[in-house]
Amino acid sequence: MIKPHLISVLVENSPGVLSRVTGLFSRRGFNIESLAVGTCEETNMSRITIVACGNDNQIDQVKKQLNKLIEVVKVSDITHIDHVERELALIKVCAAPGSPRSEVMQVANIFRAKIIDVGPESLVLEITGDTGKITAIEELLKKYGIVEMVRTGKIGLLRGASLTSSSKY
Amino acid sequence: MIKPHLISVLVENSPGVLSRVTGLFSRRGFNIESLAVGTCEETNMSRITIVACGNDNQIDQVKKQLNKLIEVVKVSDITHIDHVERELALIKVCAAPGSPRSEVMQVANIFRAKIIDVGPESLVLEITGDTGKITAIEELLKKYGIVEMVRTGKIGLLRGASLTSSSKY
Repeated sequence: MIKPHLISVLVENSPGVLSRVTGLFSRRGFNIESLAVGTCEETNMSRITIVACGNDNQIDQVKKQLNKLIEVVKVSDITHIDHVERELALIKVCAAPGSPRSEVMQVANIFRAKIIDVGPESLVLEITGDTGKITAIEELLKKYGIVEMVRTGKIGLLRGASLTSSSKY
Repeated sequence: MIKPHLISVLVENSPGVLSRVTGLFSRRGFNIESLAVGTCEETNMSRITIVACGNDNQIDQVKKQLNKLIEVVKVSDITHIDHVERELALIKVCAAPGSPRSEVMQVANIFRAKIIDVGPESLVLEITGDTGKITAIEELLKKYGIVEMVRTGKIGLLRGASLTSSSKY
């Protein structure tokens, strides 16, 4: 069955590593739904979190290919393992004079979104949660007019003491 | 002067677009510090937010090259424009029996981080903020032992009603 997989890749920081990782997906015809790269607990390393669709066999193939890249230290598909996942979105909502600005603020409150900028014609909300929560607030806010939205990709860590993608094992 | 630039790129969703964008940076020898891709307010489009180091001239060159890619709709360097920026991190901290778990929880409280998982030997914190805040909590938590950390790249939107990177202008 084709469904989104959450893949965590620990890589050495070297120029071009991100390009090689994404190139591998595109050469095999996989569409990357979201991707987030940032520094991690180890110096000179980064953790790339990728959401890509495919069946288990296809994802296994991609994992094998990723492991062949010299800068890749560890690849883990954490989709089927107990984990926590979060995503961050900034949403600019239309709030021109006369618009139901207080309704937007109520929605923000219910979803525990923070208002991080207010202008005469717009509000910017910051919201963190799983994909479902962010999609839900997006749907609700569409009614008031979403001017712009930017989302990070999903990131995740295994629950408990288990390591997600570490050089230690 | 070489400093980090925050570049927002609106692209059409097509296989390989991410690989072409990152390839362009690596071919020009730019190291991408962080990158986040996710869906945006327009269907069939994604917004890529890149942090890359370079002087203004070099970044201008990259912007020009990005604009030549067929799937790229709009490129904006929002570094010098008034904007809000945020980043999300999940941090797994060691909290084995006998360890100062309550101190970790105090630090989380001060930084308004949420505890999203508790195990017998570890806690997972979710924290949102600018890079400075996340680096600060990371430094503080190192004392207790960071088991794993995953960060999304930075994302940002212009303040007020101005559009960051939209197909509308």
